[in-house]
Amino acid sequence: MTQQPASFQITEAEFHQRGVRLLEHLHESKLSGVVLFDSHYILYYTGFAFIPTERPMAFVMNARGEKALFVPRLEVEHANANALVSRVDHYIEYPFQPHPMQVLLTTLADMGLHGDYAADQDGYPWILGYRGPSLSELMGTPPHQITAFVEDQMMVKSRGELALLRESVKWGHLAHTLLQRYTRVGATETEVSLRASAEATLAMLDAIGPLYRALSPFSNGAEAGYRGQIGRNAAIPHALANNIVFSPGDVLVSGATAPVWGYHSELERTMIIGPASDQQKRMFDHMLALQETAFDAIQPGVPCSEVDQAVRAYYQRHDLSPYWKHHVGHAIGLRYHESPFLDLGDATLIQPGMVFTVEPGLYVPELGGFRHSDTVAVTPDGIELLTYYPRDLASLTLST
Amino acid sequence: MTQQPASFQITEAEFHQRGVRLLEHLHESKLSGVVLFDSHYILYYTGFAFIPTERPMAFVMNARGEKALFVPRLEVEHANANALVSRVDHYIEYPFQPHPMQVLLTTLADMGLHGDYAADQDGYPWILGYRGPSLSELMGTPPHQITAFVEDQMMVKSRGELALLRESVKWGHLAHTLLQRYTRVGATETEVSLRASAEATLAMLDAIGPLYRALSPFSNGAEAGYRGQIGRNAAIPHALANNIVFSPGDVLVSGATAPVWGYHSELERTMIIGPASDQQKRMFDHMLALQETAFDAIQPGVPCSEVDQAVRAYYQRHDLSPYWKHHVGHAIGLRYHESPFLDLGDATLIQPGMVFTVEPGLYVPELGGFRHSDTVAVTPDGIELLTYYPRDLASLTLST
Repeated sequence: MTQQPASFQITEAEFHQRGVRLLEHLHESKLSGVVLFDSHYILYYTGFAFIPTERPMAFVMNARGEKALFVPRLEVEHANANALVSRVDHYIEYPFQPHPMQVLLTTLADMGLHGDYAADQDGYPWILGYRGPSLSELMGTPPHQITAFVEDQMMVKSRGELALLRESVKWGHLAHTLLQRYTRVGATETEVSLRASAEATLAMLDAIGPLYRALSPFSNGAEAGYRGQIGRNAAIPHALANNIVFSPGDVLVSGATAPVWGYHSELERTMIIGPASDQQKRMFDHMLALQETAFDAIQPGVPCSEVDQAVRAYYQRHDLSPYWKHHVGHAIGLRYHESPFLDLGDATLIQPGMVFTVEPGLYVPELGGFRHSDTVAVTPDGIELLTYYPRDLASLTLST
Repeated sequence: MTQQPASFQITEAEFHQRGVRLLEHLHESKLSGVVLFDSHYILYYTGFAFIPTERPMAFVMNARGEKALFVPRLEVEHANANALVSRVDHYIEYPFQPHPMQVLLTTLADMGLHGDYAADQDGYPWILGYRGPSLSELMGTPPHQITAFVEDQMMVKSRGELALLRESVKWGHLAHTLLQRYTRVGATETEVSLRASAEATLAMLDAIGPLYRALSPFSNGAEAGYRGQIGRNAAIPHALANNIVFSPGDVLVSGATAPVWGYHSELERTMIIGPASDQQKRMFDHMLALQETAFDAIQPGVPCSEVDQAVRAYYQRHDLSPYWKHHVGHAIGLRYHESPFLDLGDATLIQPGMVFTVEPGLYVPELGGFRHSDTVAVTPDGIELLTYYPRDLASLTLST
């Protein structure tokens, strides 16, 4: 990797330290090595971003701390230029003969993986037409499942990661500001989203300059839009886009983000076209109160489940349970959703450095959906709101 | 689903027929039912499109042909409105207690799945922080692997699917036409890509009208761009975008597509800014000849491997093997890559109705990459080129 200002991207020292912690885990667990197939795990340990396809890729580390990337011929130069590993092994092509996994077996043997070894999955996942043998079949023994360790390591963000998340928040903020500015009665969701996203992306690229890297399989620039959550459709949380025309009285649920060296923030806002009705006001206020209940509940040492409990108690106290559809939020970082979850079923203790979305929602048939999502970082004594977009109804009411 | 013109989207009759074939397979194999987790398999059998997250979703069919969709609370209304199934079962949330897979087990028992059953994966894949038990653990016995049957079924496209692929080709063509028009020395790859993609998307939405549905997890509209394959970088086939400024003499490798009711075509072109050098002309001509070799080799009844063999022979005959990086192409449809593959290792017999990309490439260090990709449909006596974008050097040379 070329030298770049310390304020952007993760340093080589930090990538090295990530590997050191993984190596310590291998030693503690007396494992001969580890194989990781998940593209985000590979990005986390090597700095190498790619879009997963039917061609298997893997990161391998042995108990001596030697790191390898296993790629198809197609990705060799790309991997050599970008991955912080000491060797790049490759196979010719998928499907081909011999099967890529047979070639991987040679790499594993050569690096000394045998007997007790770990992996995130028992072989490359069968996506996009890929088929192949499991590691159990190839190695003769199943891998130790290492996902819990990797997830635990990725949960707590470093200062460098927090800096990138703050940078992502800024460009999501710009995209959303433009989205709100261009949204008006008669316009379509798609034209407004495309215009806001394009302008924010070009501004981000000009502001950060040529060193900018998205390193994201999800998107190449800032994005803001509605994903079809407009008017009555806003009551369906993950509706896919429909190119709806904005009308007076619509309740809108927006979303904005920007990938910055692989890191994603999340900003979502409920907006209303025209003066809010009494019922809309009431639901908007409850939604704000639900979010503030969660903000107050997030504290180091508290289980994630308690945050969801506090919020669920608010729903019950105010007879809002019929409008509940999902938990309070999720961790975020290299992935737009990641563990732990602010959910009744997640006992993970909250720690400083964790970053969560806080997004309890109310979904009212025939009225619409009400959800803000703010990205927050856990501090030693509570949270810091990374998102700084206005949350109040006056700021989010659009003229008709 | 609402009634729509027969020329767009897959009919309910066709979805029904897909289920009938799957049911026949269950009967032939004496299976009590099937569980599918892959989002594209679910779209194929139910018409329901969604973006996979840490919340498990599954399609279930039993030996009586009863179809269910298993979703989180969040997706219930969305699934009821869009999925062609007779029941939508749901769990509260992930992670939650009980675990969603325990709830799925209840659905499977209720539908009569037991003993011999099939699945595409042994449990929901561990993505985005999800963790959970395998079907083997839940059911007491491992599932029969049904991926080969599903892939075989999806390989051969119906008339309705071909119509949607042709529609996708048209809007990819428009996006690429605009991309080529706006690409000029001094502009950046991102501004040109954003402008061409936005204009093509808005034109497509206005042309097809409000009934248009992308039904794609990959994109919401027409897209054209370079993904960083510009100048010397064009020698790296899957480079990620870098916002490069176009310069005289650059070799460009573009890509364009548009999702149309879930179906994707692929159009890629090699373009050169300014008059091509002799070396560029030579490589461009070889690339065209490689592609034509593949066009001639694709015939019903021929194994996929023979197409790759014919093309590999051309590389060898002309001392081009150092510039080879990947096989000839892949099938395409609901997924941008799918099986079978035009690859030495794929013995699948080519059949009428299969749709392939044809995209042999030459990657020359210090010069650039040379690759066209055309989408072709197999006919009873050869191929039909679905892509109709110009392929010749004169049409693809940009003024400086």
